[in-house]
Amino acid sequence: MIVVMKRSATEEQLQHLVEHVEALGLKANVLRGTERTVVAAIGDERVNGVRSLESAPGVDNVMPVLAPYKLASREAHEETSVVRAGSLELGGKSIGVIAGPCSVESEEQIVATAKAVKAAGATALRGGAFKPRTSPYSFQGMKEEGLKLLAKAREETGLAIVTEVVSPEDVPLVSEYADVLQIGARNMQNYRLLEACGKANAAVLLKRGPSATVDELLLAAEYILDGGNGRVILCERGIRTFESHVRFTLPLTTVPYLQQKTHLPVVVDPSHGTGHTNLVPAMARAGIAAGADGLIVEVHPDPENAKSDGYQTLSCDAFEAMMGQCRRIADAMDRTL
Amino acid sequence: MIVVMKRSATEEQLQHLVEHVEALGLKANVLRGTERTVVAAIGDERVNGVRSLESAPGVDNVMPVLAPYKLASREAHEETSVVRAGSLELGGKSIGVIAGPCSVESEEQIVATAKAVKAAGATALRGGAFKPRTSPYSFQGMKEEGLKLLAKAREETGLAIVTEVVSPEDVPLVSEYADVLQIGARNMQNYRLLEACGKANAAVLLKRGPSATVDELLLAAEYILDGGNGRVILCERGIRTFESHVRFTLPLTTVPYLQQKTHLPVVVDPSHGTGHTNLVPAMARAGIAAGADGLIVEVHPDPENAKSDGYQTLSCDAFEAMMGQCRRIADAMDRTL
Amino acid sequence: MIVVMKRSATEEQLQHLVEHVEALGLKANVLRGTERTVVAAIGDERVNGVRSLESAPGVDNVMPVLAPYKLASREAHEETSVVRAGSLELGGKSIGVIAGPCSVESEEQIVATAKAVKAAGATALRGGAFKPRTSPYSFQGMKEEGLKLLAKAREETGLAIVTEVVSPEDVPLVSEYADVLQIGARNMQNYRLLEACGKANAAVLLKRGPSATVDELLLAAEYILDGGNGRVILCERGIRTFESHVRFTLPLTTVPYLQQKTHLPVVVDPSHGTGHTNLVPAMARAGIAAGADGLIVEVHPDPENAKSDGYQTLSCDAFEAMMGQCRRIADAMDRTL
Amino acid sequence: MIVVMKRSATEEQLQHLVEHVEALGLKANVLRGTERTVVAAIGDERVNGVRSLESAPGVDNVMPVLAPYKLASREAHEETSVVRAGSLELGGKSIGVIAGPCSVESEEQIVATAKAVKAAGATALRGGAFKPRTSPYSFQGMKEEGLKLLAKAREETGLAIVTEVVSPEDVPLVSEYADVLQIGARNMQNYRLLEACGKANAAVLLKRGPSATVDELLLAAEYILDGGNGRVILCERGIRTFESHVRFTLPLTTVPYLQQKTHLPVVVDPSHGTGHTNLVPAMARAGIAAGADGLIVEVHPDPENAKSDGYQTLSCDAFEAMMGQCRRIADAMDRTL
Repeated sequence: MIVVMKRSATEEQLQHLVEHVEALGLKANVLRGTERTVVAAIGDERVNGVRSLESAPGVDNVMPVLAPYKLASREAHEETSVVRAGSLELGGKSIGVIAGPCSVESEEQIVATAKAVKAAGATALRGGAFKPRTSPYSFQGMKEEGLKLLAKAREETGLAIVTEVVSPEDVPLVSEYADVLQIGARNMQNYRLLEACGKANAAVLLKRGPSATVDELLLAAEYILDGGNGRVILCERGIRTFESHVRFTLPLTTVPYLQQKTHLPVVVDPSHGTGHTNLVPAMARAGIAAGADGLIVEVHPDPENAKSDGYQTLSCDAFEAMMGQCRRIADAMDRTL
Repeated sequence: MIVVMKRSATEEQLQHLVEHVEALGLKANVLRGTERTVVAAIGDERVNGVRSLESAPGVDNVMPVLAPYKLASREAHEETSVVRAGSLELGGKSIGVIAGPCSVESEEQIVATAKAVKAAGATALRGGAFKPRTSPYSFQGMKEEGLKLLAKAREETGLAIVTEVVSPEDVPLVSEYADVLQIGARNMQNYRLLEACGKANAAVLLKRGPSATVDELLLAAEYILDGGNGRVILCERGIRTFESHVRFTLPLTTVPYLQQKTHLPVVVDPSHGTGHTNLVPAMARAGIAAGADGLIVEVHPDPENAKSDGYQTLSCDAFEAMMGQCRRIADAMDRTL
Repeated sequence: MIVVMKRSATEEQLQHLVEHVEALGLKANVLRGTERTVVAAIGDERVNGVRSLESAPGVDNVMPVLAPYKLASREAHEETSVVRAGSLELGGKSIGVIAGPCSVESEEQIVATAKAVKAAGATALRGGAFKPRTSPYSFQGMKEEGLKLLAKAREETGLAIVTEVVSPEDVPLVSEYADVLQIGARNMQNYRLLEACGKANAAVLLKRGPSATVDELLLAAEYILDGGNGRVILCERGIRTFESHVRFTLPLTTVPYLQQKTHLPVVVDPSHGTGHTNLVPAMARAGIAAGADGLIVEVHPDPENAKSDGYQTLSCDAFEAMMGQCRRIADAMDRTL
Repeated sequence: MIVVMKRSATEEQLQHLVEHVEALGLKANVLRGTERTVVAAIGDERVNGVRSLESAPGVDNVMPVLAPYKLASREAHEETSVVRAGSLELGGKSIGVIAGPCSVESEEQIVATAKAVKAAGATALRGGAFKPRTSPYSFQGMKEEGLKLLAKAREETGLAIVTEVVSPEDVPLVSEYADVLQIGARNMQNYRLLEACGKANAAVLLKRGPSATVDELLLAAEYILDGGNGRVILCERGIRTFESHVRFTLPLTTVPYLQQKTHLPVVVDPSHGTGHTNLVPAMARAGIAAGADGLIVEVHPDPENAKSDGYQTLSCDAFEAMMGQCRRIADAMDRTL
């Protein structure tokens, strides 16, 4: 950690800071520059109260040097982790594709979708039973009934089930049915939920919050890893920016950046990441070319009549066409799909 | 709702859309322009599936006309709601000030702070017992023990207690001690928590999420109001933008905008809204001048040694000085503080 | 254009608005909804003063229906425009690659780079002679001397020259040497410069401003097209967002979105779009997979000693490796490179 | 400057970096931490090529310590600069108010506005003659004719004239008529224009670009100061964020932050900073309470029929009412208006 002193800082303030730094268990090196004095604090800076140093007299600002996460770090674990959950594998040579509707609506709908996406090459089925919705007047999901229909679809197709969990108290119930627990973007910093998933025996797909930094995403993963669950999948699904022609801005640079910083596999969600059906295939291809380990895509037999998210959902035919394009890009990346 | 057709839309696609709109219970008006055909759908557009129309053939985009919230709307309730909770009143002529440390750390700390902020004019005490922290390695709060210390501070000063609740299962426990349940920015869209607070008999302070639109904030409030709890306070605490000299960007325009759209009182948090102690007083004054009904401010007897958020916390003396400035601004606004 | 009236609007205010709309040459359709009255104004809404209607009594807001640009629109010109400038072709089956240093520094540097990038498959050479720099204390470019060195490099390699122009008065001089005039991101809304480029006989590469919407980018292109210069190339080079692990966020969704809205070719700049050398190749591949017509990439024989932008510049070897990867992606897209 | 090495950096790479740092004229201090080695480079880090060090082998990242600007810095000039231009004074005890229409439209309009705003307490008149407009189809201003009308309005009222200049070649012409040259937000990084204004003998009002950081704003001011013109006024006029209920987000924290970093006076533009007439007065009040030295506000005798920006323009009556409110806030700040 580097502490930059104010130009006006006194010798006494500097001395006070050095003592404070050392009281935190760090070693202080004082560097006197031409315009500023800087204190380099050496040691594990991930201790309580470090940032409060900014309030010490004479301090201008505090700059961390070390990444704030440990278990998620590639330095801690040099090889990419391969996460397996039923038919789904992420992080190896093959690219995993999770596809299905935003919400489970009926047995017919979910089974038909499962069959169609499997035929097109998907390796897991997604579908929401517990739906976090922006408006209390929107469809809130079929709840446990929906989970049962997902299990039925798995029976018929063999596809692993990825479904969202929205509250720590639901983790045991959802884990009974799901192969992968999805933590939605709006819950990325719901720490109680992260802790509950850290103790679950299902894998976890953790979506980046729309205003979360990459460090915050990795710290959220750290909660799950720290709880004992090593099967964590990261998902880039778009961030909030000033752009209004898309629902969210999909920053694919996250893919290579995360791959440098962490050993966890990374998937891309081109559906939420764009918010418009006609932009999904291009961003699915781009995600694979950027090096993603997998995709998660919204597919529905009849998007126009979907109970939620129809505007960003592919029909089964459109999904099949997209998979054809993605397979060629995967080949060009020496990966399989 | 306005549906804009593509320039290339066929008569058949238009007909199909009109039928779909009417099947949703709305009345369709077809307007043929020189370059585009537009369908104006009249009626309550807050029904399921409306946005999925964007996937209908020939449709370019869908623009809502009505606000998506109802109970929170000023149209539903013309007068500003005055929310009362113990010593705190917000929404009337007097400006409420909620002050205290980020975290409850000890009896001595919280009681001393309570006395100091009361002496300076604060009308409620804040303090976190359950702390949602970005890193699993940070101090996570004193939990129920902290709640007891807050109750002790209320006993000694008469100040109402505002404290955060992070999970629906904690609502009953926290409600035993708190006058106001705070829903933190990262939980603004934790719908299960919103529902639980909708059934609590404490008032609720709802913080805007750092990437939430104002409509999303009002829809989150709608969950609480719809649950039966009318004592909702909205809080602007800053949004995520590209600015890096502040921790968050504090958009005070939210204050007059919300006051036009909703009857709920609005408070400003200049501590999180700036992230730096030396910027807090100016933004507290500006918040009042913008018309805010109250402030929520971090104060600690010794910010440099605070267990959390010290970099944005005022000392008791600095808080007292700030209150003197704010009182003059309140006078200029014909309000009391 | 749709004008939404306030709920409290009077019949007189409605009548006044209708008259104002018709005075602007549009036809007003009044639609009385259950909660709001809406006026649909039919005709060419791209007339002066339309947005000022928001100040008319009783008006809540004004929503445009038509795109604000015309000549840039794909509706005006269904086929993608192929832009040719010397050895560079963009918009056809082959993918164009513009590569070279941020700044021209010496004859040796620019000629060596030109040869290396040509050997690796680049179809044009970039290099800055007039440099717009954030700080007055930074290297400002070699000016005309730099243009001469670029011309020399073209002589030796046959590569077309792409170089930035920063002021309308320089357009004639730069046009003498350049095949393509680059308008930098910070000048995207320098309208006098756009007008001057609209009259130049070189092609124009127009970079998106870091906070410009896509509509604003297309309106900037409209200035050039309206001036009579049809050879306009659009460039996505990243936007300002809250992300701090990259210098800019590269939103590749711009590529398919622009291709739906405009006939102009689109190139991607993965160097400025990420700001870090080690992220460039992944985003170059992703750009092509998203459907871009070309790339513009910073390459220098010795990035560590580059006078500007070294942190995001590829060495010649790294560029060659990247081109090998990009060629495979291009093949998968049925394009050549 | 602090250079953080990669964990995997070799001793040879470290040695290479140290030599490179010293070749730049800085002194290198090597600090070996438990996880990383850090090199603190002492000296004036504002030299060319420093950031290119990020491309050196073994380097992870480079963190500057010193502010990149000098002349604009409060460290260079401890007292706030008072800028005077005709009837306008900014930076002293009194608050300056610049008011007038977006565009000069006619003699009658500009003279009537000048008289009205003067009567209400404005100390300068704004009005655009050269208009940078997003669309080539919008009203582009009256050009020199408009400047003459502004001069006429000054003759009649004594108000100083603030008007925009959009191109370096216009600086001499506009300087003949204007007391203050306004550099618009979209031109904040038009360096040729900044240089020309640095040599003008009028004062300069420099608006923050909508995606410019505060450091970039101060570096733009540095260009003007470095050119020899010390009369620079900074203006916060709002930034681009994800918020859609306002045209721009007005981050008033800029005011106290700038006052800590620079000696230049700071004004706030609540018209562009909100984009809606009904939000302007609250933000004008808040700007003064935040400590601004002045305001710049759009006023027109008939906003509904203004040729530009009517949606964010106050009528003369509304301006007078706002000034009454602002005067009370100014009193509470011990300032005059």
